[in-house]
Amino acid sequence: MKVNNKIYRTVWLENRSVFMIDQTLLPFEFKIFEAKNYHTTCQAIKTMIVRGAGAIGAAAGYAMAQAFFDAPDKGFKEFIAKAKTDIENTRPTAQNLFYATNRVCAAAFKSQTPRKTAVQEAHKIANEDADNAKRIGELGSGLIRSGFKLMTHCNAGWLAFVDWGTALAPTYVSHHNSKNVFVYVSETRPRSQGAKLTAWELKNEGIDHAIIADAASASFISQRKVDLIIVGADRIAANGDVANKTGTLAKAIIAKEYNIPFYVAAPTSTIDLDCQTGRRITIEQRSEDEVLYQTGLNSKGKIEKILVCSPGSKALNPAFDVTPAQYITGLITEKGIIKPDNNSIAELLSQ
Amino acid sequence: MKVNNKIYRTVWLENRSVFMIDQTLLPFEFKIFEAKNYHTTCQAIKTMIVRGAGAIGAAAGYAMAQAFFDAPDKGFKEFIAKAKTDIENTRPTAQNLFYATNRVCAAAFKSQTPRKTAVQEAHKIANEDADNAKRIGELGSGLIRSGFKLMTHCNAGWLAFVDWGTALAPTYVSHHNSKNVFVYVSETRPRSQGAKLTAWELKNEGIDHAIIADAASASFISQRKVDLIIVGADRIAANGDVANKTGTLAKAIIAKEYNIPFYVAAPTSTIDLDCQTGRRITIEQRSEDEVLYQTGLNSKGKIEKILVCSPGSKALNPAFDVTPAQYITGLITEKGIIKPDNNSIAELLSQ
Repeated sequence: MKVNNKIYRTVWLENRSVFMIDQTLLPFEFKIFEAKNYHTTCQAIKTMIVRGAGAIGAAAGYAMAQAFFDAPDKGFKEFIAKAKTDIENTRPTAQNLFYATNRVCAAAFKSQTPRKTAVQEAHKIANEDADNAKRIGELGSGLIRSGFKLMTHCNAGWLAFVDWGTALAPTYVSHHNSKNVFVYVSETRPRSQGAKLTAWELKNEGIDHAIIADAASASFISQRKVDLIIVGADRIAANGDVANKTGTLAKAIIAKEYNIPFYVAAPTSTIDLDCQTGRRITIEQRSEDEVLYQTGLNSKGKIEKILVCSPGSKALNPAFDVTPAQYITGLITEKGIIKPDNNSIAELLSQ
Repeated sequence: MKVNNKIYRTVWLENRSVFMIDQTLLPFEFKIFEAKNYHTTCQAIKTMIVRGAGAIGAAAGYAMAQAFFDAPDKGFKEFIAKAKTDIENTRPTAQNLFYATNRVCAAAFKSQTPRKTAVQEAHKIANEDADNAKRIGELGSGLIRSGFKLMTHCNAGWLAFVDWGTALAPTYVSHHNSKNVFVYVSETRPRSQGAKLTAWELKNEGIDHAIIADAASASFISQRKVDLIIVGADRIAANGDVANKTGTLAKAIIAKEYNIPFYVAAPTSTIDLDCQTGRRITIEQRSEDEVLYQTGLNSKGKIEKILVCSPGSKALNPAFDVTPAQYITGLITEKGIIKPDNNSIAELLSQ
């Protein structure tokens, strides 16, 4: 997608270096980070220079390919085995990471030219992520008419994937097809991924938008100033219940109350058939400091963290919530748009 | 209520000075502001050193009484007339302000000792505000059992009135009666009156509480971790629809979905019989800067304003929303707890 009118991916490989948009500095600074070997790429995943399921997977695939370059002929296999463990230990809960390292290793070890094959496989993983996201965008854009006012929550944009994103992909495709769209960007406290990342993405693509306080969503929905809501997903249960960033559930309930369509966009890899309902999903409780403090740009243009709550008070910070399938109009996946229920999901995955 | 274990009102008169808790510095600094004449009290109302419907009314009554002290014997009436206009021009949309100036003047001019009567009437106004709030607290506390987890939004605490507050008064009375209560304090973006003022009040009273992101409310309600929600009101229509701080509507809809009681606490003076339904209430659109920037304490202990959104993006900032009566369990007023409908409201006001 576009940044200062130039096309970028979130992460890419050039010669032997992995390049990444440094997401720790966004939206206040745009810098490309170069990792010349797999060790530095590991460090970048760990410190969240690259973040988001798809983007982490692609970065891990490229790190694995770098390890094949770096490995000496003597002790080749041992070097690769250690590198694989190092990469997998960076963000050990990220599913896409293991998927990528396993896939690159399997392909390379079957090949006569393991170094070349590792690179090819890593590129394939990144391209598939971008292709799936683009397909979600194309399918989802069928729901969008010119003049639509959309609403989203958090950041399920291209920064979280290699390109296109999920919740934002239908908006991007619509915009590219000259549909006139407007997006209400819910700021997504406490970490403000909406206000900081989604707004940044939309501005760079030249898409009309406005940031709103999360609490103001109901105000716009109740006045029917919103035509369609699309959010992403962290996990989708077999029955269609969706775990996503805190604040998703509120929007879904209010949307249903006012008959506004509410869709969840995610690749089929987000569906977890082993998880029967949303009740089985454990919600991560994050540090109260995310609520108590806010980070931003001070009057001198420096990034600063300030206390925004009454000193001495505590906070509770559930990072995600679970939206029961009954409040969700449909799931937008790369394989099709379906109803969020057991049968539709099973059928989709068997294709 | 208590601050550092000493009892305070938000505003009071001592000799000829009006004293106010300086709300522009809270929660980071606790300072009492002294206004030695009505001019300075006017300035304090204008700059929001004192804020909130009831507190503004009391401050205006005291300012009017100060004008009676300050007025010279020669040109007494002219001085008072000018002072009245000055006071009324400080925050011209605040109903309570006109109510207070008119009442003090009417009483004083009927009296043989106008200066003395003006002071007595101003005290009466402040005391009535505190008494009404306390009564709301007593009636509302009947809804609270020991062990309850409450939720509130914004600040309808004692800082907005002379004492006790409205939405928080039932919690204070319950706490004084040794009921064990816990309060989820919704931070109330963009101005964070929950995180900054409500949390500060509760901490000073020693009431157990936790600040949460507004978007997290649904998470706690859906898990039935909330027993009762009480919020304040800026205006109540004749049919029971309620205008209150943005974010109220979302909580009310979600509470109804999960059968959690949702009450609105306000003095009967908040009811506007001329306003037939909530649809007639004009919603104030405030500056986008309230969303784009956040104010807090930096690492050096200084109050600082930082940009918390992607630079160059716009924001929309409706200050209030309207909650239809169908989502409200009841109204807690100083005259009783009633259903939010035309008949119950008309009957209450005719008492």
